[in-house]
Amino acid sequence: MDLSRINDPSLLKDMNTKQLEEFAAEVRQFLIENLATTGGHLGANLGVVELTLALHKVYNSPVDRFIWDVGHQSYIHKILTGRGGQFDSLRQYKGLCGFPKRDESEHDVWETGHSSTSLSAAMGMAIARDLKKQDHSILPVIGDGALTGGMALEALNHIGHEKKNVTVILNDNEMSIAKNVGALHGALGRMRSAGKYNRAKDDLEWLLKKIPAVGGKIAQAAERLKDSMKYFVVPGMFFEELGFTYYGPVDGHDFEDLMENLNYARKTDGPVIVHVMTKKGKGYHPAETDVKDKWHGVGPYKIESGEKIKPVNAPPAWSSVISDALIKKAHGDERIVAVTPAMILGSKLEKFGEEFPDRLFDVGIAEQHATTMSAGLATQGMKPFLAIYSTFLQRGYDQVVHDVARQKLNVTFGIDRAGLVGADGETHQGVFDIAFLRSVPNMIISMPKDENEAQHLVHTAAEYDEGPFAIRYPRGNAKGVETDKQMRSIPVGSWEVLKEGTEAVILTFGTTIDMALDAADRLEKEGRSVRVVNARYIKPMDESMLHDIMKQGLPILTVEEAVLQGGFGSAVLEFAEENSYTSQWVRRMGVPDRFIEHGSVPKLWEEIGLTPDNMVKHLKELIPTKQQRA
Amino acid sequence: MDLSRINDPSLLKDMNTKQLEEFAAEVRQFLIENLATTGGHLGANLGVVELTLALHKVYNSPVDRFIWDVGHQSYIHKILTGRGGQFDSLRQYKGLCGFPKRDESEHDVWETGHSSTSLSAAMGMAIARDLKKQDHSILPVIGDGALTGGMALEALNHIGHEKKNVTVILNDNEMSIAKNVGALHGALGRMRSAGKYNRAKDDLEWLLKKIPAVGGKIAQAAERLKDSMKYFVVPGMFFEELGFTYYGPVDGHDFEDLMENLNYARKTDGPVIVHVMTKKGKGYHPAETDVKDKWHGVGPYKIESGEKIKPVNAPPAWSSVISDALIKKAHGDERIVAVTPAMILGSKLEKFGEEFPDRLFDVGIAEQHATTMSAGLATQGMKPFLAIYSTFLQRGYDQVVHDVARQKLNVTFGIDRAGLVGADGETHQGVFDIAFLRSVPNMIISMPKDENEAQHLVHTAAEYDEGPFAIRYPRGNAKGVETDKQMRSIPVGSWEVLKEGTEAVILTFGTTIDMALDAADRLEKEGRSVRVVNARYIKPMDESMLHDIMKQGLPILTVEEAVLQGGFGSAVLEFAEENSYTSQWVRRMGVPDRFIEHGSVPKLWEEIGLTPDNMVKHLKELIPTKQQRA
Repeated sequence: MDLSRINDPSLLKDMNTKQLEEFAAEVRQFLIENLATTGGHLGANLGVVELTLALHKVYNSPVDRFIWDVGHQSYIHKILTGRGGQFDSLRQYKGLCGFPKRDESEHDVWETGHSSTSLSAAMGMAIARDLKKQDHSILPVIGDGALTGGMALEALNHIGHEKKNVTVILNDNEMSIAKNVGALHGALGRMRSAGKYNRAKDDLEWLLKKIPAVGGKIAQAAERLKDSMKYFVVPGMFFEELGFTYYGPVDGHDFEDLMENLNYARKTDGPVIVHVMTKKGKGYHPAETDVKDKWHGVGPYKIESGEKIKPVNAPPAWSSVISDALIKKAHGDERIVAVTPAMILGSKLEKFGEEFPDRLFDVGIAEQHATTMSAGLATQGMKPFLAIYSTFLQRGYDQVVHDVARQKLNVTFGIDRAGLVGADGETHQGVFDIAFLRSVPNMIISMPKDENEAQHLVHTAAEYDEGPFAIRYPRGNAKGVETDKQMRSIPVGSWEVLKEGTEAVILTFGTTIDMALDAADRLEKEGRSVRVVNARYIKPMDESMLHDIMKQGLPILTVEEAVLQGGFGSAVLEFAEENSYTSQWVRRMGVPDRFIEHGSVPKLWEEIGLTPDNMVKHLKELIPTKQQRA
Repeated sequence: MDLSRINDPSLLKDMNTKQLEEFAAEVRQFLIENLATTGGHLGANLGVVELTLALHKVYNSPVDRFIWDVGHQSYIHKILTGRGGQFDSLRQYKGLCGFPKRDESEHDVWETGHSSTSLSAAMGMAIARDLKKQDHSILPVIGDGALTGGMALEALNHIGHEKKNVTVILNDNEMSIAKNVGALHGALGRMRSAGKYNRAKDDLEWLLKKIPAVGGKIAQAAERLKDSMKYFVVPGMFFEELGFTYYGPVDGHDFEDLMENLNYARKTDGPVIVHVMTKKGKGYHPAETDVKDKWHGVGPYKIESGEKIKPVNAPPAWSSVISDALIKKAHGDERIVAVTPAMILGSKLEKFGEEFPDRLFDVGIAEQHATTMSAGLATQGMKPFLAIYSTFLQRGYDQVVHDVARQKLNVTFGIDRAGLVGADGETHQGVFDIAFLRSVPNMIISMPKDENEAQHLVHTAAEYDEGPFAIRYPRGNAKGVETDKQMRSIPVGSWEVLKEGTEAVILTFGTTIDMALDAADRLEKEGRSVRVVNARYIKPMDESMLHDIMKQGLPILTVEEAVLQGGFGSAVLEFAEENSYTSQWVRRMGVPDRFIEHGSVPKLWEEIGLTPDNMVKHLKELIPTKQQRA
């Protein structure tokens, strides 16, 4: 079958089990072939081929609402809803999004990217449906990892309480991105091994009859027990206790088991949970046998061997640079521990875990808990390093403010994937952290220009004793520079002149430094003299350097790969205002006030005008005008 | 006993039950008498008198760590740890804080104010203790309401998984601030009624022996059941399933029951939960019999009658103004629903609930879920109004960005308690919302000057179809102005000149408008002419008015009761930069870059210099200098 020509899921309705199985194999082949070129979330999608087909066969999208938690497992859903033809552009600029997107199709009713939102969205949709007296199913599809996110648990609690008709599809691959943690995971394990729901129910009824119905203490005890047992001796009692009807465990790769249980679920009133066991990477040997993460998110690869096609001799990833520095530091300082919300691999913390197995804490997808637990550690004199992606730190914002910064606790935030991230797109761009952290009192915010400065900042943070310290670093590879043997402190709030210049100053940091140097070099060839400053501390700024620049009346161009509203450039404007440099010329470049979609980072830089060309243009405007004024 | 002279909890160690009971009565009397003058969280503290005494008797603070979740129930703990003498200054400027405060005492090991942080803090402290090979107890004391916060559930999951020695004291008053919601609440209810743990365990053992041990199907079924029953037929199986040893339910007003169970808990390894039943308001008749919230947080009152001492003829509270407008609007628009995270009373939504019982949703303490559930409602064409305190919206920040604003969904945020809140202090000041919302694309942020404008903004938000709309309003009472019969739209981004003036302009909104008018009047008497503008839209701003002002080169003073970093004043600076008004004079007044402690709002205004005096001073500097330049 030509999968790029499927318009809607109706073709599934008449398929029998054998046909479904053949179709599933074709879908797998399609995914393996297409993603070999584009990359993408192969493992997760291979795990839900049968589940997605079964859902679209039993239910009627878009009348019935599928809500894909996290959303990177929605590729099959995209194929079935008319988007198979666009897979050559997957996750590329202006191409098919790697997550559900309402603009793409009426079958995408909820956009995701961050984890654990699906149950809350489903509850909102269920309330709306009931108020409008409509009748359709609402089906959040959530992984076992995402279920441990606090927000999902809040929603589970609320849905169960309100007895809403919501059918939760629990996609349990015993894994999620990282090895699952949490007691709930243990509970799921017991459910998996406890056999089928109905079987256990039958057992119970039958056995209860065997308990002699006599008077006195026996009767009382038996009654009490019968009452309790009704709820709890079945697998899934954890969910039953929360008000859900539990179906499962279901073999997520067996169409008959899937159809039977989904058909039960469809006829059941009130909250339902269908516990589906799937295997991440299913059907593609290199993914299935990968012990690390079953090919969670991958770049291009060779289909036959599964060999990843990677740039040769690339410098180490920023995450590795940071965690290597942390290891170096941790050898001499027992107070240092590392905390991650389910991102040991992404944050490259495996080696830290090998060297310090007792000092690495993976708390699961639980950014709030990760942040406040780090605060708790710091109250006891520890030096926690919380490695967290910029976009996911958003979920710990209140904890940063209320628990860490307000108590001035020594938590180091390793803000990974800061700036534009590329293919993951608008849900993952790490462009808000400067704006939301800069207004938090007691917060230090820094960004290194290369791996050598990165290690020194890790050292500085570890030695700093006055409160929270954030080091932000981008996705991708570092610069490939030599690093000093000895780590040293970089005085908090100190900047560095990278290139001297007398007519204007570029203040920038991190990823945009190279562009700035390029722009300054080009202007130099035209006879202009532009200074480039590495503003590695975003908060506090180098006030003495700023005074010097402003006293001289040098025009300033600020450049940041982060939102302009309330960002670093605004901090410079605020400084000028606070110190009454009323005729100071400042121009700001950065990310504009809208969400930035997916695409390669250079493409996105171009789209938002964050280029050396534009720097040159701005500086030319600033310099002559300044001369005219003089 | 003179409670103001207690230095530490050692006096409890030799007390017998009778002495403890007498002492408890004295503590109650002390609280009732002192709070009659100062106000405070009477209900919660009356509920935990015996519990706090028992904890301090069985454990040794500060070696053993008490972590008070939310923290407003820590008054007895404060009395026992040397602070009884300071209760006349409770919640007053420079006086005793209403929450735990590390500066006040070594017995306060964790500061709180927001809910649901205690378990994460406890986990951090437990990890630190074990790494340092120390041996002491860690005791988070958490209410049944706070337990439904997602963060607490994340932590519960993690503690259970890691099998850490943490003793959770579940203070179950079946109520928390509002009537508890959530399926977990139902589970707690079943635990309460299911009798004692050990009793049930005995019952089970005894009954299992009665099941005939024969072969074949019976034996298999019985074995399976025995296995399951071990975990689940006892009350507390929900917690046992998560890896906790459960003790309870315990009568929280019976010292013998408390001591017995706490002593068990102390000797138990691994995670323990002690389920303590308490009565909010216990021992003070007016509080005990209050059906609304058992005197959760109160101002001064008459001890004998319980009559609240209130200002006469005060205008309606801002929360009432907003919810009355919402009711008016909801009559004509079925799409409008109201959502609150456990704040029906605080947000004055009772009346809305009476008129539209099907359209008010209290989701419990679950700000993340509340935000994303509202987003889910909006995807289906509903117009959810989420009433949420500014400081608690911090917990929904990621959901605002990722779920609401990114999808451009029509959620109205009623941001209550915006600005300084006074007695609740630094954990509750609503001063960050402008900074953290202004950098979010698609967001409208507004603040009304009086109740008439408030109702028009509610109308405007309901009619607005382009995405999220925030209306922020302060704690306390509105202005007492007449309101129009007819509600109307206030064009988005339009400002209003309140007083004409030709030499300078004050841009301000909400609470600081009166100060600005006062300052302008005083300057008028000195012959100066200052314009006052109601900048009721903080985002987007009135660009045409800004262009007019800046083209004329009028100096601008911005005034906001919110943090200066990235706030409204910065938006004005950004506008000047974007439009190349390079010699525009702007000065900003607002909340400085530090946390602001408790005290009356006028006291705090003075402390941070947000006064008409300072406005006059700044304007005098701006105006002549401007003239000098001309």
